[in-house]
Amino acid sequence: MRTPQQFLDSLDDGREVYYRGRKVENVAKHPVVGVAARHAAKLFSFERGFPSEELGEEVSQYYRFPRGAADLMARHKLVYDTTMRCNGVFNISQAIGSDALFALTAVSKKVDAAAGTDYSGRVRDYYRHVATKDLTVAVAQTDVKGDRSKRPHEQPDRDAYLHVDEVTDDGIVVSGAKAHTTQGAVSEEVIAIPTRAMSERDADYALACAVPANARGLKFIVRPIDELEGNSSNVLSGKDFELETLTIFDRVKVPRERVFMLREHAFAGALAVTFATYHRFTAVSYRAATSNLFIGATSLAAKANGIQDASHVRDNLQLVIMYKELMRMSAIAAAQTYVEDGGLAIPNPLYTNIGKLYSNQNFGRVVDALNDTAGGIVSTMPAQEDIDNPEEHGYISKYMTAATSGDERIAVMKMAKELAASSFTGYLLSLMIHAEGSVQASKLALIRDYNLTEAEALVNGVLGAKPAEKRP
Amino acid sequence: MRTPQQFLDSLDDGREVYYRGRKVENVAKHPVVGVAARHAAKLFSFERGFPSEELGEEVSQYYRFPRGAADLMARHKLVYDTTMRCNGVFNISQAIGSDALFALTAVSKKVDAAAGTDYSGRVRDYYRHVATKDLTVAVAQTDVKGDRSKRPHEQPDRDAYLHVDEVTDDGIVVSGAKAHTTQGAVSEEVIAIPTRAMSERDADYALACAVPANARGLKFIVRPIDELEGNSSNVLSGKDFELETLTIFDRVKVPRERVFMLREHAFAGALAVTFATYHRFTAVSYRAATSNLFIGATSLAAKANGIQDASHVRDNLQLVIMYKELMRMSAIAAAQTYVEDGGLAIPNPLYTNIGKLYSNQNFGRVVDALNDTAGGIVSTMPAQEDIDNPEEHGYISKYMTAATSGDERIAVMKMAKELAASSFTGYLLSLMIHAEGSVQASKLALIRDYNLTEAEALVNGVLGAKPAEKRP
Amino acid sequence: MRTPQQFLDSLDDGREVYYRGRKVENVAKHPVVGVAARHAAKLFSFERGFPSEELGEEVSQYYRFPRGAADLMARHKLVYDTTMRCNGVFNISQAIGSDALFALTAVSKKVDAAAGTDYSGRVRDYYRHVATKDLTVAVAQTDVKGDRSKRPHEQPDRDAYLHVDEVTDDGIVVSGAKAHTTQGAVSEEVIAIPTRAMSERDADYALACAVPANARGLKFIVRPIDELEGNSSNVLSGKDFELETLTIFDRVKVPRERVFMLREHAFAGALAVTFATYHRFTAVSYRAATSNLFIGATSLAAKANGIQDASHVRDNLQLVIMYKELMRMSAIAAAQTYVEDGGLAIPNPLYTNIGKLYSNQNFGRVVDALNDTAGGIVSTMPAQEDIDNPEEHGYISKYMTAATSGDERIAVMKMAKELAASSFTGYLLSLMIHAEGSVQASKLALIRDYNLTEAEALVNGVLGAKPAEKRP
Amino acid sequence: MRTPQQFLDSLDDGREVYYRGRKVENVAKHPVVGVAARHAAKLFSFERGFPSEELGEEVSQYYRFPRGAADLMARHKLVYDTTMRCNGVFNISQAIGSDALFALTAVSKKVDAAAGTDYSGRVRDYYRHVATKDLTVAVAQTDVKGDRSKRPHEQPDRDAYLHVDEVTDDGIVVSGAKAHTTQGAVSEEVIAIPTRAMSERDADYALACAVPANARGLKFIVRPIDELEGNSSNVLSGKDFELETLTIFDRVKVPRERVFMLREHAFAGALAVTFATYHRFTAVSYRAATSNLFIGATSLAAKANGIQDASHVRDNLQLVIMYKELMRMSAIAAAQTYVEDGGLAIPNPLYTNIGKLYSNQNFGRVVDALNDTAGGIVSTMPAQEDIDNPEEHGYISKYMTAATSGDERIAVMKMAKELAASSFTGYLLSLMIHAEGSVQASKLALIRDYNLTEAEALVNGVLGAKPAEKRP
Repeated sequence: MRTPQQFLDSLDDGREVYYRGRKVENVAKHPVVGVAARHAAKLFSFERGFPSEELGEEVSQYYRFPRGAADLMARHKLVYDTTMRCNGVFNISQAIGSDALFALTAVSKKVDAAAGTDYSGRVRDYYRHVATKDLTVAVAQTDVKGDRSKRPHEQPDRDAYLHVDEVTDDGIVVSGAKAHTTQGAVSEEVIAIPTRAMSERDADYALACAVPANARGLKFIVRPIDELEGNSSNVLSGKDFELETLTIFDRVKVPRERVFMLREHAFAGALAVTFATYHRFTAVSYRAATSNLFIGATSLAAKANGIQDASHVRDNLQLVIMYKELMRMSAIAAAQTYVEDGGLAIPNPLYTNIGKLYSNQNFGRVVDALNDTAGGIVSTMPAQEDIDNPEEHGYISKYMTAATSGDERIAVMKMAKELAASSFTGYLLSLMIHAEGSVQASKLALIRDYNLTEAEALVNGVLGAKPAEKRP
Repeated sequence: MRTPQQFLDSLDDGREVYYRGRKVENVAKHPVVGVAARHAAKLFSFERGFPSEELGEEVSQYYRFPRGAADLMARHKLVYDTTMRCNGVFNISQAIGSDALFALTAVSKKVDAAAGTDYSGRVRDYYRHVATKDLTVAVAQTDVKGDRSKRPHEQPDRDAYLHVDEVTDDGIVVSGAKAHTTQGAVSEEVIAIPTRAMSERDADYALACAVPANARGLKFIVRPIDELEGNSSNVLSGKDFELETLTIFDRVKVPRERVFMLREHAFAGALAVTFATYHRFTAVSYRAATSNLFIGATSLAAKANGIQDASHVRDNLQLVIMYKELMRMSAIAAAQTYVEDGGLAIPNPLYTNIGKLYSNQNFGRVVDALNDTAGGIVSTMPAQEDIDNPEEHGYISKYMTAATSGDERIAVMKMAKELAASSFTGYLLSLMIHAEGSVQASKLALIRDYNLTEAEALVNGVLGAKPAEKRP
Repeated sequence: MRTPQQFLDSLDDGREVYYRGRKVENVAKHPVVGVAARHAAKLFSFERGFPSEELGEEVSQYYRFPRGAADLMARHKLVYDTTMRCNGVFNISQAIGSDALFALTAVSKKVDAAAGTDYSGRVRDYYRHVATKDLTVAVAQTDVKGDRSKRPHEQPDRDAYLHVDEVTDDGIVVSGAKAHTTQGAVSEEVIAIPTRAMSERDADYALACAVPANARGLKFIVRPIDELEGNSSNVLSGKDFELETLTIFDRVKVPRERVFMLREHAFAGALAVTFATYHRFTAVSYRAATSNLFIGATSLAAKANGIQDASHVRDNLQLVIMYKELMRMSAIAAAQTYVEDGGLAIPNPLYTNIGKLYSNQNFGRVVDALNDTAGGIVSTMPAQEDIDNPEEHGYISKYMTAATSGDERIAVMKMAKELAASSFTGYLLSLMIHAEGSVQASKLALIRDYNLTEAEALVNGVLGAKPAEKRP
Repeated sequence: MRTPQQFLDSLDDGREVYYRGRKVENVAKHPVVGVAARHAAKLFSFERGFPSEELGEEVSQYYRFPRGAADLMARHKLVYDTTMRCNGVFNISQAIGSDALFALTAVSKKVDAAAGTDYSGRVRDYYRHVATKDLTVAVAQTDVKGDRSKRPHEQPDRDAYLHVDEVTDDGIVVSGAKAHTTQGAVSEEVIAIPTRAMSERDADYALACAVPANARGLKFIVRPIDELEGNSSNVLSGKDFELETLTIFDRVKVPRERVFMLREHAFAGALAVTFATYHRFTAVSYRAATSNLFIGATSLAAKANGIQDASHVRDNLQLVIMYKELMRMSAIAAAQTYVEDGGLAIPNPLYTNIGKLYSNQNFGRVVDALNDTAGGIVSTMPAQEDIDNPEEHGYISKYMTAATSGDERIAVMKMAKELAASSFTGYLLSLMIHAEGSVQASKLALIRDYNLTEAEALVNGVLGAKPAEKRP
């Protein structure tokens, strides 16, 4: 298993990455993108090894196939603990890639059985490659989609969804673009999978494959990281953040052994959903850890203000605690009631989606709770440069004093500001609604497969017999 | 283990029960109270046995001490399944009594250790008595409390909280009254425990004991069951319901061997809380089952109206499903992360209270979801007597037709009415907020013991190091 | 203007009314239906007169055409005050009829102008008839609708919507049924109007007309009034309630002069919407008054329990006050920004619908607030018969004592129970979601006509100019 | 009345202003602070004049005393329209000052009557000074407060609340600091008023006075404007924003004629509340206008994505429209039911606070609605510099295409990002909860003066008479 530096060195591979209109020469050394790279690298400084029987060597725990509840609980803990060690910021480096590998493992067997293909062998080989080399892997799923009212094959621009352009002797050529690829620009591999179920007419879009991040024709345009560059309160973002890219495939060649689905449209939905389930399980795990930032900031801000016993403040704290623990509750229940699929344990989609949906719908209230507790000072406090100016410092320190010293309160309020009243807040609000599936997607997933039989039978049972007639 | 009839016969024991101003001669034969008695009796028709090693014989599964996660999961399933077999209505007969016995078992050991008493022996004997005789046991916890702004010893009327009146040679004499005792009037035993923590000055109120339901001086005044007697849509309540009583202790004698706490005020809070935790675990288990009535009715009403694919209807169904499954999630997580206490497994209070609080706060939305789906017809449809009148039946059947026949839709709508627009609804709304602990009680429990260290340390860790300074 | 007795006498007119499967001989003398009749009659004991210039005589204020903001404010006050004088229960007797007459007056002019008909003359004559005779008028709008996924002309049973059966020499014959007709069975006249917009193929259903309540072929099937008959806490419902009926038109003859729309399908929507707007204005006015019951009960229950200063109780009270006053706010704003239509002032639909929608969506929280404040005792307290039993009374009175005497607290809790935990609660929950238009209907109305131009132009204006570029 | 340039020139007056640790030489010419100054200056380019009878000349409409409903409605429109003309950003320049002057006018008369002072004359003179010179005025109300659990006189540092230090021959000397002073650094005058009611022991803190912004000892420390400087999407903030300062009074001399309250502690509360009422009326007026940004962005983003007819998108749009219009509703109702006070019309505090509280509590949901509609692309889209890079532009434009062209969609999404996922969002979230009074303050105000008599009397009336006894 590698060191952080080995990982960082591996990123200098000629990949095509843009940041604010400029090509990035070496992502690991870029003043902004480099922070995301070093965040990813932290993973390599943690104990992660486990002896894999399948592979006959020690590999990262992220690449451990979950075979039952205990494995899923261990995975929940792994994601939670890693997030805690990265200051509450998710570290996706090997998490999302393994989510995708598990889904590909489960679904490729079904495709092979139905279509006589050998995708499962390719997936197994790719898994061995990734796990034994201890690689980091990004997943590109969400197509840019063009006009939302049209299906893939109806789009005026066929590139609106990633698709096969050409089949060659030794592989395929693909084009299109995926949005929101987390850490793509600082990972070593990229797996592309379908974003939704596909009909027969959309068969060209039923596509799963993997390429290295420096594949020719692959371009990453990084979002501007205002949270780091333009944020007076970048206490946290200055240390850890993950970037997203618009990821463009411009006639990228994929060798045959890295093609995991090609036109088997009937299985595109299963692959999308299985990945989403694993990844939402990862999501509730990291979000629970991230929520600790809000619990801690709410509690410390309340104490700094001297209002920790006020009833509305206790209500705020209770709301934030419930927000976090409901996600853990979701992870625990999903692990315990896992679905067995060809030897793999898939987290129960129902409980995974409930935790995810609660998280989507209630994050705004968490931000409100922190703002309500911390007070308006969060947004109107002076800048660090004022605090550092000796002419001003005495005044600021004196007038920021409340139940703690002014300087201590300033420190807490900077954290509160970053979480509740900064560009990081804005980013989180968008993320918490859309990342790992939108509100609508989670609602849909929650109801789609729900078995109504038990409940309907109960009601029909009640209605079947005549009620007691008590009215005199 | 007994038969339903044996149980019903045992209730004819001279107990003092009032219903609507009249003394009830035999609760099992009373036209209203008897429905609750027969509901309780159903328990004796189900397979419940398990071989108890402790007792050396087969006893009811309700009396199985939970020793770990698997036992708690089995208990969750037991409560859930029994509720399902009683048409979605909780059957408290041996559930609440065992909740109290578990709590008494855990706490009495601590009292004994601290005070040199022998309560744990008495509890063990009483447990043997109850379990081997397969008895049903009610629990009287909530004192009537008098003026809520005063502590027990400050009340003008010392009977506002149950207390010891006199210590005699062979036991004690107690007076006071407990509110909301579920099924007390149709159970065989009654356990009384404190409703809250007690200070030294409240020591007389730190009292736990058990008496048979026909103890002299014990009086049960049953609430009026409008849901059965005055409810045109008593489809369900005509079959199954549980009654509550105002339970009066007028100088009731308790033999020494049935006194489980007497003035050990420092442990009153622990007993109240441990019981509450077990009982809220029971609560989320039965409420999950009860919620199936709402899922089934919402789904069937939607289909009867032909609107099951409308987006607001799907949102309604999703909300009700989430309501139920969030409680199961809470039970599973609480079982898996149980707290070990002297050999007993206590459900994790945090997850138990989250499920309970969510249930308290969101039940009104569940009712709204059903009303919104079923339509105003739920409250304006004609009475059964109209439907039975041949002159009217043709019109009603014709004009109730929608996506199903009029008669089928009428049946579904009667269920929807009972659940969402009847006296049963009113009763449930009160119950769901207050039973097994109010909103405030659950909020308090959730925050009281929460360990803020992890979250505060995370924030302090972030603040400890200087953030990266990226602003040019 | 008439006396209550004159009104009650007029109801003995041979109308066909059913209650619980029996034909009601004289609605005013029926033990249940008579309560609704006497409630209606109260209107005739209040000062209601105003000198109408149009009619040249004094008529009821309800029949005063609103010509501007002051008239609408007076109408708001009239509805609010009348509700207060009827113990917080709406008195629809002349309110809904005038709402419909205003809408018919506005829309008939447009039909006449477009189609060369003379409906406006007929409406004027009918208005004179109703106003000068001081009649009460019910409105039958909501068709039973059959399968909700089909339009009127697509229904397998053409009677699913009220329609013209036959055109005769002197009028028309109509058939069908309307649901939820409030007080139809105890009013003197019934106006039928369309429930929705109609296409050309639905022309037969574009129908508005009026008939006396004793018209041959008109049948009223009253819903069962459990709130009165089966409700231990019918403190309020025993005095005042309004009934709803399934109203069946079985080949009812309508003379030509009472036909106000016949196949002018293009105007069916306008008539439905204009009536809905007037009637929702009436709704927010009476609901504000009704809400006083909840404010009063919450406040008195808090005081009886001695918890009026607890923060969660103050939050509860604030929520209920806001609920009421938001409706008044809606009425005031709708009146002040009325829409002029051919000399009539129509309440601003936007503000009317906002008040209505808030009322729909938040009533469940009002019930929760009262339950949370009053406590579980609301549902578990003994019956009046127990309180009346001398053997029990002492105990009950003693143990119901809190911050007030037990007897005073019992009285308040009966009111709290009726409002928050009884069949009346269930009825209200259904009513508050569906009466005067469902949640979906109010949402639709709110967004349908909203002019987005101002807001979109603002955004486009911002986007039009280049933003300042501050980043160094 | 002055021109924008005259106003900007007047700001170069030696005032002591700090931005990011540096003293600002000329606020009007500073690259960041100057944007706020020019925003303020826009006021002078609008038609604002009205002929004042009191003053005998034309002055700004902001300084028109409201004498009745029509004047308040005109003031609502003035604030709304000015906000719309400033791109949806409030222009506080003469709004808050006049709010304070109205409150001082009303309260000073009462102080004079009670204490024999002549504050009302001083207020009148100051009003004449400000209005005839067309000055802009900031208001400093919220003291920094120190430890929130202590009253002013209990604070370890007496400067925690602004107070009189010394009384001199010609005036007073004051010290302390006020937080959150909007536009103080770019206004010409500053009025200080108490933040709360004061007891006799807090008399030194019962202080109201006015000073010019360049008064010696007055220091403004401006918050860092990340919304402008660090925001990739500063489409709006680059044009218009208002700044807040920590405003320090370090032994500032106030001449006697500018002292409006000095130790008359019994009236501190009335002054704080009367100002708050006027200012919250201003708040609901500008917030209604600001909300148009969210309506417009939600609508345009929906259209750009091609999802404007999806039901969840329509729900989002309805929510945002309701948010805006509920505030207008509040303003209209508050104006129409104003409270007369010594010739002044005060907006009804009840309706003002309902609008304010709704705005506080629901803004987070508005942000969620926009995020949910616009999609995750809002936070992951490339930077403007990428769009401007010819190498990247083609890709970005192509892949941002949906129902509109990529470039059009990019423009809309930048606005959506600024509003829903940027530092401006974070700032707004804090502002919407705290500005013009926090959630707790509005709740308190709403319930404090509410007259419960009407509602309690209604309930008592119902309870007074025996209910009908219908049960057979």
